[in-house]
Amino acid sequence: MYTPNFLILLLLFQQSIRLDAIDTRYVWGYQCLENKCVKTKITSENQNSILALQVCRLYCYEDIGTLWPIPTGNIVNSKTIVQFNSQSINVESELLFDNKYFIEAVNRFKDMQLKKIPSKYPLISGGKRLNVTINVETNDTILNYDTNESYQLTLIEESNQLRVTITAKNFFGARHALETLSQLIVHDELNRQLVTLSSVSISDEPKFKHRGISMDTSRTFFSVDVIKRTINGLAMAKLNNFHWHITDAQSFPMEMKKHSDLTKYGAYSHKKIYKVEDIQDIVEYAKARGVKVIPEFDLPAHIGEGWQKKKEHLTTCLNYKPYLKYCWQPPCGHVNPTVDEVYDVLEDIYKEMIDIFNPPAFHTGGDEIFFSCWNSSESLRQWMTDKGWTLDEEHFMKLWGQFQTRAQERLDKVSNGNLPLIIWTSELTEEPYVSEYLDKSRYIIQVWTDYKDVRIQRLLESGYRLIISNYDALYLDCGYGSWASDGYIWCSPYHEWQKIYQNSLDQLGGERVNQIFGAEATIWSESIDERNIDARIWPRASALAERLWSNPSEHWRRAEPRLLMHTDYLKIVGDLTAEPLQHEWCIHNEGLCQL
Amino acid sequence: MYTPNFLILLLLFQQSIRLDAIDTRYVWGYQCLENKCVKTKITSENQNSILALQVCRLYCYEDIGTLWPIPTGNIVNSKTIVQFNSQSINVESELLFDNKYFIEAVNRFKDMQLKKIPSKYPLISGGKRLNVTINVETNDTILNYDTNESYQLTLIEESNQLRVTITAKNFFGARHALETLSQLIVHDELNRQLVTLSSVSISDEPKFKHRGISMDTSRTFFSVDVIKRTINGLAMAKLNNFHWHITDAQSFPMEMKKHSDLTKYGAYSHKKIYKVEDIQDIVEYAKARGVKVIPEFDLPAHIGEGWQKKKEHLTTCLNYKPYLKYCWQPPCGHVNPTVDEVYDVLEDIYKEMIDIFNPPAFHTGGDEIFFSCWNSSESLRQWMTDKGWTLDEEHFMKLWGQFQTRAQERLDKVSNGNLPLIIWTSELTEEPYVSEYLDKSRYIIQVWTDYKDVRIQRLLESGYRLIISNYDALYLDCGYGSWASDGYIWCSPYHEWQKIYQNSLDQLGGERVNQIFGAEATIWSESIDERNIDARIWPRASALAERLWSNPSEHWRRAEPRLLMHTDYLKIVGDLTAEPLQHEWCIHNEGLCQL
Repeated sequence: MYTPNFLILLLLFQQSIRLDAIDTRYVWGYQCLENKCVKTKITSENQNSILALQVCRLYCYEDIGTLWPIPTGNIVNSKTIVQFNSQSINVESELLFDNKYFIEAVNRFKDMQLKKIPSKYPLISGGKRLNVTINVETNDTILNYDTNESYQLTLIEESNQLRVTITAKNFFGARHALETLSQLIVHDELNRQLVTLSSVSISDEPKFKHRGISMDTSRTFFSVDVIKRTINGLAMAKLNNFHWHITDAQSFPMEMKKHSDLTKYGAYSHKKIYKVEDIQDIVEYAKARGVKVIPEFDLPAHIGEGWQKKKEHLTTCLNYKPYLKYCWQPPCGHVNPTVDEVYDVLEDIYKEMIDIFNPPAFHTGGDEIFFSCWNSSESLRQWMTDKGWTLDEEHFMKLWGQFQTRAQERLDKVSNGNLPLIIWTSELTEEPYVSEYLDKSRYIIQVWTDYKDVRIQRLLESGYRLIISNYDALYLDCGYGSWASDGYIWCSPYHEWQKIYQNSLDQLGGERVNQIFGAEATIWSESIDERNIDARIWPRASALAERLWSNPSEHWRRAEPRLLMHTDYLKIVGDLTAEPLQHEWCIHNEGLCQL
Repeated sequence: MYTPNFLILLLLFQQSIRLDAIDTRYVWGYQCLENKCVKTKITSENQNSILALQVCRLYCYEDIGTLWPIPTGNIVNSKTIVQFNSQSINVESELLFDNKYFIEAVNRFKDMQLKKIPSKYPLISGGKRLNVTINVETNDTILNYDTNESYQLTLIEESNQLRVTITAKNFFGARHALETLSQLIVHDELNRQLVTLSSVSISDEPKFKHRGISMDTSRTFFSVDVIKRTINGLAMAKLNNFHWHITDAQSFPMEMKKHSDLTKYGAYSHKKIYKVEDIQDIVEYAKARGVKVIPEFDLPAHIGEGWQKKKEHLTTCLNYKPYLKYCWQPPCGHVNPTVDEVYDVLEDIYKEMIDIFNPPAFHTGGDEIFFSCWNSSESLRQWMTDKGWTLDEEHFMKLWGQFQTRAQERLDKVSNGNLPLIIWTSELTEEPYVSEYLDKSRYIIQVWTDYKDVRIQRLLESGYRLIISNYDALYLDCGYGSWASDGYIWCSPYHEWQKIYQNSLDQLGGERVNQIFGAEATIWSESIDERNIDARIWPRASALAERLWSNPSEHWRRAEPRLLMHTDYLKIVGDLTAEPLQHEWCIHNEGLCQL
């Protein structure tokens, strides 16, 4: 068939017209009016000024736009949108250029931009090149409680490029800046472009240094992929802590070389084991995302599966029934603190964990001791009696305290001897025991009481540093049916994001707020699996993230429209199954759903 | 390279040895002791008798094994396991052989068996051929309230095959039998086989005829794939009803040919429209799974988006603020029942819906009228005043009743004139209005009060037939944070599966239980999207399924171990993100977690 040349030209011309104009299948767009994006019918008159929702929200809320968490320093954003070429991103840093974490962070940043582009709707080509220059003071990548996470970011539109300059003390601050920059880039569905603002200046640093979640991989095994996806989500919200409650009574999924029986008998199956290389992979993955991994080895209670081979002499009440007589959840089990060999085994385990995790802090677990469990062991009772102790609370507390001291000695022996130690609140963290057994220069106490518990104030007054996980806001598993009976999980109801957002550490700490390192949301996995864990965590962990990074004075009502956009961002860029907070009409009609 | 023949033989022999023995990486197996599967260490002594968990559970609970819902007639199962060849399934039916629903059902049955095989762990070849013969009395595939769903199933092991005979009145009963048969086939992970029982005899039929869920695609748009996945889940639990709340005030995602403005302006976007062919595809997909699709067109309230072009004369209070003055959720809107043209538009919409859905019943919506909305229209008030009516409850109720009558006339005009009609409880379903306006031979009333509401008894006494959706058990969206403020959704707390399981219709109906057609769980989507909807529905809809199909007298405690296995089945075979009820330790240790 013969096609006249002019027809080809006409077809090309028509296509170019179609691509340059707004996709006519869109009926609604948005305009920024008084700090709100208002849904507006697209007409021939307004089609050059009408905005896609994501684009409008990018600048239409003071200077914050959709940034989450809110930067704590100066923010100045232009109100002008500029197209940006997703194919042409360049990130450079003289000092970091061969740093493996930096290389991973840059690749991740580029991938995140590509994820914003819907697969069926390719972009129009064109747009300016994005040149990012990162200046840091050190190539060191030590991530601990002393790490400075601050950064400054400027973006300037020049004739041929967008020039971004990031200044930070180290990789971790620079990484946060890339996270912020990514939030400033959105997909414009009406015009099929990636766009950003033409001018930005932000300085930023976190208010609290410990910001994270804890994950329980004993009650439910989560694959390496799920853990990585979760850690990637932490990075997107500038959370910096992954507390890994790796073992418990229900299963022992951690590969142990010397005491391989713990894993062999304790894992749910041979397919549900974290091998040494898996753990190291996760730790490195987390570090490239600015996230510390703090392992927990929970003792002297919370043991069970895996300890079968050591049952006779090293444990008490292992799998005793009825379980409520000896522990809160089946299977019951405590280690027997009167047996010297216990500490040899602990030393072996600690040594392997320190080698594998190389952690910046170590969580020793340590709550929910049942004296009835210890008291069920004749040899343990005999040991106490031989010492002239009575079988009452006073001496069981002494036994517990001595256990903690001896366990700590073994941990110190196989580590640098000065690791920050974390321990759950329990009877041992009350006076007089806490002062007697827990050195306040070594131990940070993770509080899981309710917000108003007077023991929090007492610990602050005693000079302890705290991590807050008050169950009445930060336990993300609450509100569902009980796994053990009908009715509800003990910590019900469900904690909605607003409660988490308003969970003020300033008010909790008062004058002693500087002793509060931060907070952690916990995700106990009695009724959680790989498929629903995302919805339990997100976006509620992001509400916590803003509380900890920005410590905002603004009410949750002002944060809500931003959190809705951030939730979409977690879904699209993070592949996270975040729980929707409102339906789409509310997102399209900002503020009109609030009562 | 030269390989001696004897070496090849040796290699083959070794491989065959390895495959015949239990995979040595498995440490734990199960044995059936006193109706419970007890976790047991695998030893050289017991390795020929030890069972995989799925296999043990298949027969180790009276005759029921893991069937869900429990068959209502005789059940006799052998306690002998027989290997079965997943590659060699043959399903035949003389009468149905070219019936398209039957062909789809057979293909689906075969696919379901393949889904049980883990991708990385291929099966050992071998096992008997499965020959299924289906005898039905009719090739008709009419699915409505008169459809007989009963079936008988027998399975006999013969020397060279497993012979299954299914006898049913029609395709739908036969389809249920295939569902039961599928539940009798499990993957044996220790021996890498699909297995079933060597002898089975089951007769079965449902106790209640209306068993389903309703899904709200207005507040959130769900893709065709998500709807199909949900319907497939219904089929797996022998639920037979998909009530499609397709439109509401928040969006109008249904393609309309004549009134295309409803869709154009009402859909969330052009990507979020159910085209005519999508809907027909879903209806056929559902039918092949024994599921009726009952569409709802909710009026006179619950309109909003899409009605912009008809605002001036056909609606009242459209998008008025503050919304709580005129409706429960934004955007507000009612049709104006005093305008004759409204009924012409309704007739057009009804006609298209009847053509598209070809439904066995039609839901007319009909609740949450705000007289303040109607009263806000001057022309409406004038119309009432001209008739000599006063602007009080009495006459607004009259207006409402007349609207229902006129709307019904138009629906009857474009359908067969005798469709069962369903309507939500409201002021209109109370006396004296219900008897005046709602013909009890036409209307089935869907009750969404709480369980103890006296109005349920009154409706039964007035002779109405009911579908039960009491919000205090069957509203699956409850328990989460409010979408409009902090605090909780109005119908909180969360309804755990036990509450749903114990939600007795017998007790509710008493002597009039035969007027109760069944029940529906509702999934309102204010805070639900494609990613978390599965976890809201499953396995709680399965708890409802057993209540409705089997109407069991047994306590939920006895059902729990079976429901845990059924939940796994929904995940593995149905690709559904069912909410886990207990962690894996409880599944491995049957009954030991219950308080």
